Amino acid sequence: MIDCLLLGTGGMMPLPNRWLSSLLIRCQSEMTLFDCGEGTQVPMRHLGWGFKRLSSIVLSHLHADHVMGLTGVLFSVGNAGRTEPLTIYGPPGTMVVAQALTVVVPGLPFEVLVHEIEADERLRLPAEIDLSVGQADHRDHCFFYRVDRSREPRFDAERARAAGLPVQLWSRLQRGESVEWDGRRFDGTEFQGPERRGVSLGFVTDTRPVPEMPALLQRVDLLVCEGTYGDDADREKAIQKTHMTFREAATIARESDAGALWLTHFSPAMDDPDAFVDKARDVFPRTTIGYSGLQTTIAFEDERIHP
Amino acid sequence: MIDCLLLGTGGMMPLPNRWLSSLLIRCQSEMTLFDCGEGTQVPMRHLGWGFKRLSSIVLSHLHADHVMGLTGVLFSVGNAGRTEPLTIYGPPGTMVVAQALTVVVPGLPFEVLVHEIEADERLRLPAEIDLSVGQADHRDHCFFYRVDRSREPRFDAERARAAGLPVQLWSRLQRGESVEWDGRRFDGTEFQGPERRGVSLGFVTDTRPVPEMPALLQRVDLLVCEGTYGDDADREKAIQKTHMTFREAATIARESDAGALWLTHFSPAMDDPDAFVDKARDVFPRTTIGYSGLQTTIAFEDERIHP
Repeated sequence: MIDCLLLGTGGMMPLPNRWLSSLLIRCQSEMTLFDCGEGTQVPMRHLGWGFKRLSSIVLSHLHADHVMGLTGVLFSVGNAGRTEPLTIYGPPGTMVVAQALTVVVPGLPFEVLVHEIEADERLRLPAEIDLSVGQADHRDHCFFYRVDRSREPRFDAERARAAGLPVQLWSRLQRGESVEWDGRRFDGTEFQGPERRGVSLGFVTDTRPVPEMPALLQRVDLLVCEGTYGDDADREKAIQKTHMTFREAATIARESDAGALWLTHFSPAMDDPDAFVDKARDVFPRTTIGYSGLQTTIAFEDERIHP
Repeated sequence: MIDCLLLGTGGMMPLPNRWLSSLLIRCQSEMTLFDCGEGTQVPMRHLGWGFKRLSSIVLSHLHADHVMGLTGVLFSVGNAGRTEPLTIYGPPGTMVVAQALTVVVPGLPFEVLVHEIEADERLRLPAEIDLSVGQADHRDHCFFYRVDRSREPRFDAERARAAGLPVQLWSRLQRGESVEWDGRRFDGTEFQGPERRGVSLGFVTDTRPVPEMPALLQRVDLLVCEGTYGDDADREKAIQKTHMTFREAATIARESDAGALWLTHFSPAMDDPDAFVDKARDVFPRTTIGYSGLQTTIAFEDERIHP
């Protein structure tokens, strides 16, 4: 399962009542932060799950409103006593930015690593999180992401029992290892039941719609997507500024067959995003207007009470 | 006169209800910002006087909680359409920090200049603001500041009239220039009335008390001073962390014969600074516990209704 917490929903600049767009996820206690604008440490401290287990920060792009909070978050992670390395993932140029933004926090008690992503790369983060990368369409290098946590197939206990294998060996088989027993060799894959669906989410900002999105984001349980403008009338502005309207974001959610859509990255000029929710729900009913503190847990299908 | 606006009052980290310690002043429409931690652009946008006329940023020192908001403020100043240069003043190392923090905001429409201050320097900022610099006692290079706006002596109109000088020449004389009239040369200084008191303020953070403070801060109209800890019992902690208690700050105000004291830079552990106001008022009754939005105008003495 993956816990998801929206820390902020603003674009361009932090406002008194709206932190900059940022998403925190957690899987097996390991946390990954998507984007980190100025002030992100505040909702993260206020709403979040501590700082110490933050192992990855993934940046969509290197505009100020998506990166300037790095220093404060790294400082807070250090204060929380982290000693294990933390990796910052982002587009080309991330190394220069990360170096610049750590100038005033020398002596962090953990190592900061930087991985500059290539488009179409697939990465493995801690807690067996798979990160797939797509090329967004913004003014500068920008990526959109899909997060997958796969679910190992159920263990076929009947078959193991029938083969006379003692229960003590089952966990190794379940992990896919081979074991020797009674002079024979058994391979873990022989005892796998049917495939089980994992959990997934998408993180898409800042960008225009891109034709490849629905394929990469196919059937994500949750799509966190920018909707800089609520009003359909602002589509021209969205095109010009390389952002999206609510309706465009909802169209991606529908075409991706997403489980749910959270809208984020609202223009500072849009005081009340809720006023435009229908523009999205027209297209994709399972839309929520994001807010700082919105959270959910994406459970594995076979662990859900309401499947 | 000088307008003073406290933007934030926090130390170490921004909190949901407390922006980092920062003071904005304005004189003849020119603004100077003292310190600029993460998030400072938010109260500045919300409470302040726009961004465009910000001509100087003065940094006490280069710790993250005093500088990380520079990028956002500079970006906002650019968005507001400034084209005139803006100067950042701070201790040695300010150039490196300013360069690092502008990496993600290339192409600002105005020039950013950096002046690394020496202790005991005296600087002239726009709007004839004089900045005096004292050496603070903190872990790293840190300065405390005195701001003076002098008041030209009143023009002695009686004497000018007696000398037969036409009113058209008075403004030049008033500015101290020399004029020729009726074959004679008159010097502006001859027509100056008695000296008039200017206005002044002090900005002191982060530091332990320093013996030189009362001399440099003598008779400031307003002292904005750190009081990281309210409780007298935290004095040992204050010594260890090179900060001050409310009582220590108030002692500086008293010894400086300040007009008023605003306390700021509260420890994140201190939820309610007001609870400790008596610790300061015991020593210096004209103490106010700072808050984001606290403002005053320091008027010239002869312009005050209540002198």
